[in-house]
Amino acid sequence: MFEKKVYLQRRAALQSKLNSGILLFLGNEDSPMNFKDNIYHFRQDSTFLYYFGINEPSLAAVIDLDEDETILFGNEMSIDDIVWMGRQKTLAEKSADSGLSKILPLDQLDNYLKKYQDKNRSVHFLPPYRPENIIKLTNWFNIPTDQIKERASLSFIKAVVAERSIKSPEEIAELDRAAAISADIHLMVMQQAKPGMYERELAAKIQSEALASGGNLAYPVILTVQGEILHNHYYGNQLKEGQLVLNDSGVETALGYAGDLTRTFPVGKTFSAEQKDVYDIVLNAYHHAKDLLAPGVRYLDVHLASCKILAQGLKDIGLMKGNIDDAVEAGAHSMFFQCGTGHMMGLDVHDMEDLGEQYVGYTDDLVKNTTQFGLKSLRLGKALEEGYVLTVEPGIYIIPELIDRWKASNQFAEYINYDKLETFRNFSGIRVEDDFLITDSGSRMLGKHLALTTDEIEAIRSEAY
Amino acid sequence: MFEKKVYLQRRAALQSKLNSGILLFLGNEDSPMNFKDNIYHFRQDSTFLYYFGINEPSLAAVIDLDEDETILFGNEMSIDDIVWMGRQKTLAEKSADSGLSKILPLDQLDNYLKKYQDKNRSVHFLPPYRPENIIKLTNWFNIPTDQIKERASLSFIKAVVAERSIKSPEEIAELDRAAAISADIHLMVMQQAKPGMYERELAAKIQSEALASGGNLAYPVILTVQGEILHNHYYGNQLKEGQLVLNDSGVETALGYAGDLTRTFPVGKTFSAEQKDVYDIVLNAYHHAKDLLAPGVRYLDVHLASCKILAQGLKDIGLMKGNIDDAVEAGAHSMFFQCGTGHMMGLDVHDMEDLGEQYVGYTDDLVKNTTQFGLKSLRLGKALEEGYVLTVEPGIYIIPELIDRWKASNQFAEYINYDKLETFRNFSGIRVEDDFLITDSGSRMLGKHLALTTDEIEAIRSEAY
Repeated sequence: MFEKKVYLQRRAALQSKLNSGILLFLGNEDSPMNFKDNIYHFRQDSTFLYYFGINEPSLAAVIDLDEDETILFGNEMSIDDIVWMGRQKTLAEKSADSGLSKILPLDQLDNYLKKYQDKNRSVHFLPPYRPENIIKLTNWFNIPTDQIKERASLSFIKAVVAERSIKSPEEIAELDRAAAISADIHLMVMQQAKPGMYERELAAKIQSEALASGGNLAYPVILTVQGEILHNHYYGNQLKEGQLVLNDSGVETALGYAGDLTRTFPVGKTFSAEQKDVYDIVLNAYHHAKDLLAPGVRYLDVHLASCKILAQGLKDIGLMKGNIDDAVEAGAHSMFFQCGTGHMMGLDVHDMEDLGEQYVGYTDDLVKNTTQFGLKSLRLGKALEEGYVLTVEPGIYIIPELIDRWKASNQFAEYINYDKLETFRNFSGIRVEDDFLITDSGSRMLGKHLALTTDEIEAIRSEAY
Repeated sequence: MFEKKVYLQRRAALQSKLNSGILLFLGNEDSPMNFKDNIYHFRQDSTFLYYFGINEPSLAAVIDLDEDETILFGNEMSIDDIVWMGRQKTLAEKSADSGLSKILPLDQLDNYLKKYQDKNRSVHFLPPYRPENIIKLTNWFNIPTDQIKERASLSFIKAVVAERSIKSPEEIAELDRAAAISADIHLMVMQQAKPGMYERELAAKIQSEALASGGNLAYPVILTVQGEILHNHYYGNQLKEGQLVLNDSGVETALGYAGDLTRTFPVGKTFSAEQKDVYDIVLNAYHHAKDLLAPGVRYLDVHLASCKILAQGLKDIGLMKGNIDDAVEAGAHSMFFQCGTGHMMGLDVHDMEDLGEQYVGYTDDLVKNTTQFGLKSLRLGKALEEGYVLTVEPGIYIIPELIDRWKASNQFAEYINYDKLETFRNFSGIRVEDDFLITDSGSRMLGKHLALTTDEIEAIRSEAY
């Protein structure tokens, strides 16, 4: 946990933004794998972690805005718990570390909430993403399970988003650490990969290093020779000379802060000329985006500018054609780049995603485009502020199914050179990604430098095996 | 997947045991970590895997016993799915591999079930353990969430338990493989552990090897110098000369079958004389239990006989006293051995635990003792049958909190030598565990031999660092 004053300040800042009623915070439960007691590793809810810092299951908390009272609901360990799980700090000790003085047994939460509802006072809750918490809210408030999310409190959501979006110095230190550890692991992978290995062997090394660092993975490893598959969690391919390995992986620190890095490197010692050409297009887009980062700049504009660099590069090698500005406006480049240039990052790798992308990444005046292929996957569009942490991650992905689909309807034929594209059908994909903090005048990369240019990567690969 | 005929046979056997109505099988959903799209690795429901073999989320199936019709409910991938997750086998192809010919879109399941209820025909379902499935059942059948489990179908449960309890040759081959891979990983840990390492470094290696083997962990690794904590998932201690490392870990194969092994070894190169004494008591209990395994023998009797060996050994070194038979009957040995000697194993490491321990491990005539400390943690009591697979895992655990608790009330003072026990207060714990198949005349250990005696273990540790 951070120092006690951090949590006191965070809760005080939140209270100052909201008027009346009670704020209900639900921690996470253990998640079962194949039976109740065989569980996945525990991950606390990030908002609960942010305001209370207590990293254990089956907790809830309320802030009564009118009475200015904060209560933690949870149970101390029984002797049976101690036999099976060992003696940890007591809940009372952990609460004290979080600056909390009032703890009630978990089963009193029902009555506490009922008392509030009877008085017609409002209970604010955040949109739940864990089904256990959907069940709890359904039972407390008598709302059907499929309507719970829309009944979440917009003022509560907005206040939390506003606060969590601006990273404090102690959070930036954690995010720096997460990015640095992630960079070390990426370097290790780049040094150890060799032809004949299976993807899962490298994915396993990454997982192992994340755990050994004292934290865990921030998200499931993407480690694949099919980099064109954006969220690929299949690790069954054998690495072959000539292929590219795309490694998108990052750790979260013990306190829960994420790193999120991607590098793409050759299975062999060198990139082919064609791979190098495409890599350099992606790297240009990366540098262009990164150089634009500054307070006041809309990330949507960073994204579109970066997409134009991608599209111009693709035109230079004959895969796109026509007017590039028009092509990007129409969305033709999303044949090659189907997703967004980046997203907010913090306690969640896609920070606060389940509080609503519209609130995290957009504004009332800048509404997310949820229809255009490509733009609908851009999680962040609004103007940047000092203290934001986000990724920059352009890429080029050649997806055979998408070629077939679009070609069949001759989609964007004025911008896409389908004949040439067929010769790239099995190219796979390239992505480059780093994490950035928005500073008062621009941005700073988090963590440490990790081989970025094809020369730097080939220098590492030349000593790899 | 196994061959198609395996699934056809399994479903036919199940159908032959049940009369009318429909059997509803719910596959598992992806489980969210800190937001909906950031997911834990997918684990299919074991019963769904057993009867259908399709290892992907968001599926359900029904067997209409009256119409002799089997239907899979699920959706083919959309182009968006393919962009993000890649082209896999189609659902139609996977269904064909499982011998299924009828597939309907997932959203037709609601109507299908409604049609049945309107006709007052019974829908049998199994007790759900994943909250997503509790929500589905609640909405389909209008049963409150906290009453869903008790509304599960007893005849369905019993038929599944009867079938899954007897392992077929292809299942035994998988369980052999799981135990053998697990043994290799245990040997690696025994070879690589050294003073100064953190527990998490070894836990990470185990996780890494499990993933690299093509499967995964069957359960969270227990790797600890505090072996007295039975389900310890804390990995923050540094290994110190003089301590014991307890490693309870096992892999599950790609098809989902579990291995479950435990070894305890010294951080240094040798056991102390005291550690060796206690280790040998545990090993005696292990051999005694293992030698009793045979069809027709009640596992409760194996457990009690093994506990008496533990208790006699503890008396020999002065930690227990008095009449050993009386002590075990009263439960006094559970100061040192708080849990059961073993459990059923298969697609779940505690096989079918959420179908109900009473049905899996006991019978109508042999009801589980749910009150006596120790016996209430014995998951298996009934007579063994050829084809059962189970663990044998005696141990001795010195739990300071339990000493304090019992000593304060002078509990079992006629059987426990509390003065001597105080000198063992920081001893920690020892467990030895292997997996066994019940054969026609006795048992066979699954997997391969893994260093078991203190001599064998010291021989490995002598070359360790």
